[in-house]
Amino acid sequence: MNFCSDNVTGVAPEIMAALIAANQGTAMPYGNDEYTQRLQTLFSELFETDVIVFPVATGSSANSLALSVITPPYGAIYCHNESHINLDECGAPEFYTGGAKLVTIPGEHGKFSADDLAVKLKKAGAGIVHHIQPAAVSITQATEAGTVYTVDEIRQIAEVTHAHNLSLHLDGARFANAVVSLGCTPADITWRAGVDILSFGATKNGAMAAEAVVFFNKKLAESFAFRRKRGGHLFSKMRFLSVQLEAYIKDDLWLKNANNANNMAAKLVEGLINLPGAKLCHPVEANEIFIQLPEAVIQGVFAEGFQLYRWEGEDSTTLRIVTAFNTKEEDVNALIKAAESYSVVLANR
Amino acid sequence: MNFCSDNVTGVAPEIMAALIAANQGTAMPYGNDEYTQRLQTLFSELFETDVIVFPVATGSSANSLALSVITPPYGAIYCHNESHINLDECGAPEFYTGGAKLVTIPGEHGKFSADDLAVKLKKAGAGIVHHIQPAAVSITQATEAGTVYTVDEIRQIAEVTHAHNLSLHLDGARFANAVVSLGCTPADITWRAGVDILSFGATKNGAMAAEAVVFFNKKLAESFAFRRKRGGHLFSKMRFLSVQLEAYIKDDLWLKNANNANNMAAKLVEGLINLPGAKLCHPVEANEIFIQLPEAVIQGVFAEGFQLYRWEGEDSTTLRIVTAFNTKEEDVNALIKAAESYSVVLANR
Amino acid sequence: MNFCSDNVTGVAPEIMAALIAANQGTAMPYGNDEYTQRLQTLFSELFETDVIVFPVATGSSANSLALSVITPPYGAIYCHNESHINLDECGAPEFYTGGAKLVTIPGEHGKFSADDLAVKLKKAGAGIVHHIQPAAVSITQATEAGTVYTVDEIRQIAEVTHAHNLSLHLDGARFANAVVSLGCTPADITWRAGVDILSFGATKNGAMAAEAVVFFNKKLAESFAFRRKRGGHLFSKMRFLSVQLEAYIKDDLWLKNANNANNMAAKLVEGLINLPGAKLCHPVEANEIFIQLPEAVIQGVFAEGFQLYRWEGEDSTTLRIVTAFNTKEEDVNALIKAAESYSVVLANR
Amino acid sequence: MNFCSDNVTGVAPEIMAALIAANQGTAMPYGNDEYTQRLQTLFSELFETDVIVFPVATGSSANSLALSVITPPYGAIYCHNESHINLDECGAPEFYTGGAKLVTIPGEHGKFSADDLAVKLKKAGAGIVHHIQPAAVSITQATEAGTVYTVDEIRQIAEVTHAHNLSLHLDGARFANAVVSLGCTPADITWRAGVDILSFGATKNGAMAAEAVVFFNKKLAESFAFRRKRGGHLFSKMRFLSVQLEAYIKDDLWLKNANNANNMAAKLVEGLINLPGAKLCHPVEANEIFIQLPEAVIQGVFAEGFQLYRWEGEDSTTLRIVTAFNTKEEDVNALIKAAESYSVVLANR
Repeated sequence: MNFCSDNVTGVAPEIMAALIAANQGTAMPYGNDEYTQRLQTLFSELFETDVIVFPVATGSSANSLALSVITPPYGAIYCHNESHINLDECGAPEFYTGGAKLVTIPGEHGKFSADDLAVKLKKAGAGIVHHIQPAAVSITQATEAGTVYTVDEIRQIAEVTHAHNLSLHLDGARFANAVVSLGCTPADITWRAGVDILSFGATKNGAMAAEAVVFFNKKLAESFAFRRKRGGHLFSKMRFLSVQLEAYIKDDLWLKNANNANNMAAKLVEGLINLPGAKLCHPVEANEIFIQLPEAVIQGVFAEGFQLYRWEGEDSTTLRIVTAFNTKEEDVNALIKAAESYSVVLANR
Repeated sequence: MNFCSDNVTGVAPEIMAALIAANQGTAMPYGNDEYTQRLQTLFSELFETDVIVFPVATGSSANSLALSVITPPYGAIYCHNESHINLDECGAPEFYTGGAKLVTIPGEHGKFSADDLAVKLKKAGAGIVHHIQPAAVSITQATEAGTVYTVDEIRQIAEVTHAHNLSLHLDGARFANAVVSLGCTPADITWRAGVDILSFGATKNGAMAAEAVVFFNKKLAESFAFRRKRGGHLFSKMRFLSVQLEAYIKDDLWLKNANNANNMAAKLVEGLINLPGAKLCHPVEANEIFIQLPEAVIQGVFAEGFQLYRWEGEDSTTLRIVTAFNTKEEDVNALIKAAESYSVVLANR
Repeated sequence: MNFCSDNVTGVAPEIMAALIAANQGTAMPYGNDEYTQRLQTLFSELFETDVIVFPVATGSSANSLALSVITPPYGAIYCHNESHINLDECGAPEFYTGGAKLVTIPGEHGKFSADDLAVKLKKAGAGIVHHIQPAAVSITQATEAGTVYTVDEIRQIAEVTHAHNLSLHLDGARFANAVVSLGCTPADITWRAGVDILSFGATKNGAMAAEAVVFFNKKLAESFAFRRKRGGHLFSKMRFLSVQLEAYIKDDLWLKNANNANNMAAKLVEGLINLPGAKLCHPVEANEIFIQLPEAVIQGVFAEGFQLYRWEGEDSTTLRIVTAFNTKEEDVNALIKAAESYSVVLANR
Repeated sequence: MNFCSDNVTGVAPEIMAALIAANQGTAMPYGNDEYTQRLQTLFSELFETDVIVFPVATGSSANSLALSVITPPYGAIYCHNESHINLDECGAPEFYTGGAKLVTIPGEHGKFSADDLAVKLKKAGAGIVHHIQPAAVSITQATEAGTVYTVDEIRQIAEVTHAHNLSLHLDGARFANAVVSLGCTPADITWRAGVDILSFGATKNGAMAAEAVVFFNKKLAESFAFRRKRGGHLFSKMRFLSVQLEAYIKDDLWLKNANNANNMAAKLVEGLINLPGAKLCHPVEANEIFIQLPEAVIQGVFAEGFQLYRWEGEDSTTLRIVTAFNTKEEDVNALIKAAESYSVVLANR
């Protein structure tokens, strides 16, 4: 069983069915199709406000293109030092912005606070020609540590962001997991809290390859279409991107999927946390678990065929375990059972 | 019936079936899956030489990424003045190369000759610090005018290209149509003729969204993986890109599809060319027809519900008609019949 | 005697004197000095309107930085196909704009007309996502062919430019020569005619290394200071840039210098034009002469030690002859005399 | 008296004299002059090895251009977190590299160690497609904290750098001050210690605006000339850049100048360090002093007309005091005396 990431999964059956259904007849290319047009309404309903939405196929392109419309080449993007945009996109934000700089803010459990941000911005040298100019703030929800910003935390960050005339981007690669975790509406943790642009992820939660860049601040969207095309991210057969997103939000599939992932993570952590030597690195608030386990237990579950990431290199005994939209309770139980059995062996040595 | 472009079509049934079949179980992400690994062998077999192949989802990204590895920011890319990379990618090659310049070469029917290229290169100012430096040549096969370079023409262009220490890229958005048209092997019009990198298109010819960047000159491939990731074009669920390409070349589906498109174009042009007032703009050597028709005929077929592009603006009586992998003979006949009937009306006025 | 270019000259004595005088005591760096501050007033007086002025050291940086503030990365800059920005800056405008494209307009004698521009813009595909978006127009004054746009010609180009919501940049590497040639005020052929940004050249006309980027449309200047710094063009000991510009415009030195250059060119062309086989390529309206001469005459004057450029390659019998602020009448006469003497030899053969 | 920076000074008399002397007759532009040609030999002699040298006018351009030839767009440059390239160039390195990332290493007194670097590089993820790829290391000598790397320290850093196949750049804005401080040859702390490229500063130490980019690893120099032109940093009247550098190194002027600056700094720190409440932030090893003084003393010396920087914002009692090539002992004594007098006042309160 593979718990390495939620992106090791395939496509949710509802989304595959929608892809098959969309494969009828011809459709005008590059978004001039009914599916893409319809998305504007569907996302506006979903977010309870008029939005502009652009489908793209990858999270890196969603994030980088979104950041490129709010950050000049001489700009600074404030983000967590362990954020995906900083560590795991091979410099895509720098590329799309034309060379902006990511200024990192440390913080426990993948989050930084409004105060942390304010301190950084105070030292930023806005208006001084020698320094890059503060332009954007980007936070990840759910975070790279598997935690979730509360509505209040986002609102406070948004207030500091806007007080400095910056824009707030939210990397929502696991947005669904955060919404389910918080039990709020998607509006509550986005525009109502002050988010200007959202990378609304679908791929990790059941799509084949689809993300939506959602503009709440619509005047920021002006150049997006050109930047998307120029980045090579405008699909000719766009209907097959858009229909994934349509199916993803239809009948709350996205929430249903995330709910399963979160539940399975909760169940898994419950089963692992009391093993001797187990130590949780971060609170488990979505579908990712970061946990230290004894080396013998790790080797044991590996030997049983479970796939998990050692998080900080080959020698690390910190594991990342990710559950997904289609993770089965029996597989979770099997993993717990395997871990338990190797713990017992260890105890009996 | 929609003849606007081959990208108005959906997905070929064989490819959709492969996508469905690939949606089983988990697979490691970002190309560490069996489908992607297998592509290396399959494409090496297809091209009868060891190649390195990278799947991407769009033609613009295939072309731009390919050009970025052979062109420094201060470099010049020589291409036809009506090439897609020059006119229809919103500056993607400039973006990916970091600001290189496309130097355009005019030429009849979408093609330029080795001599045209040699003349341009002679004036290029190689080594002179004030001038951008010749770096790459890019030709399109089949061309944007629906014509096809012969093997000899490509070989001659390649010779000039390499004599100046440049690299040769081939934009093969409609590569299959060219191979079928020439009746040669894919090796014959690529590496054997001197092509260094190929954008091997699949989307227009039956894939959902898949292209392969094929490196014949393997040492050029070194930085590609980083550039692809950095451009946001590395798919997490990569198997769904790779399996499209696998199905596309399996059992010669790509050639079968292109064969139908080319045949339908030939049939269509045969039916239209003798209409009064009809004038072919370019030889029809693949699956695109550029033809002038009387305005009344154009309005007539539009009124019958046929969708075609007026090629040079709203007032133009030049049409582009594109056939595809799944164009049906009955639809071609219907279009011919409609055009004939409006020609008769016109003649009787 | 060297007539290859006006940039083979040294520094005008008045400007060298000013540099020496400015070398007293300390001054705050990066433009926070009295010289730089004063320039704002001096240039506003010179242009009879409130301007913002930024000193830089090279023409390429002046042009590229100016273009970068009016052209997004996906933008198009319309310029003459023989313009310096297109041919002789190794892609600097592409670099500074982040990959914009220069769309070239041909035209006799280094000039294009408002109509030529309008035709190009009509086909540009503004608003269509596949195409780069029209953003800027750049003209050179005096042109690269040694001709001069009239006030009316610029006004008409500006009208077309602004009717399409683009900005107009004027590359004034030889601006002084144009002003003298037209006998107008600097205001007349810039902002009063519709120019938004001027690269005001001084280096070719007597400065050591100094150009001014002058913003008539002041809201465009907002990001300039950051872009200049980021390009490495903000001088720490800025006073030595600014004082060159101050001395250059003081007591109309710039006009006096250009007047000499233009007069010497007029005298030279008068002496050469009636030689047997001489053929002027462009009207001589400033300080550059493009003239065809018999090969024997060319070799003769070269043998006498005169330095001139063969304009289109080693075999060319078209010469470019450039006069400068300090060209002496005796040297002009000597060149004419040499050419005449070799013409006589030729006639007697 | 202005001690804010060494760039508040003017031009050393020897260099001004050389500029005046060079202003004779004509010279071919863009470096095709005798001064620039001669520099190759002069710098090769100075560094006791064959080097390639390119004059530019600013330190930011020297650093950014140097880094651009050793760092691909997806590359990482390792540098101190308080380095000038990281904090004070408005993102110029990011611009010139096409979006590379500066990875910062903290360290006391403006220096990091070979071990610090090795630890960072171990975690860098070389070869992993999600991560930017280690490409270059840049150190500053003398550092931004006024300290100096020993020859051994540089050698160790170079060893780690080269062991990872990276290139080593040295930002020598105050290189002369470091050479004088160490009492070594310029070769000793550059190529003999493993430096590949040096930004050899002259502006702060007596030039008007001149820096040299010196390539010890000559194969890295290949693209430099194009990148310099493209950045707008190729001067037409290049002789005036090159002659500054010639005069700067002639008769060891650069060392004589730096010697004065270092001596004056030593004298100054000696006079200030024992004042009540004085606290040195970094060892004074070149010509910069970072010192905490009581607020009343600071206000006192300001009131006397001395200009110094409060280093960390308006409320800071940490001062940066910089001496220069032409700092006079009487001015140093005057500053010490003023500081002493306000210390006495304070003591008597």
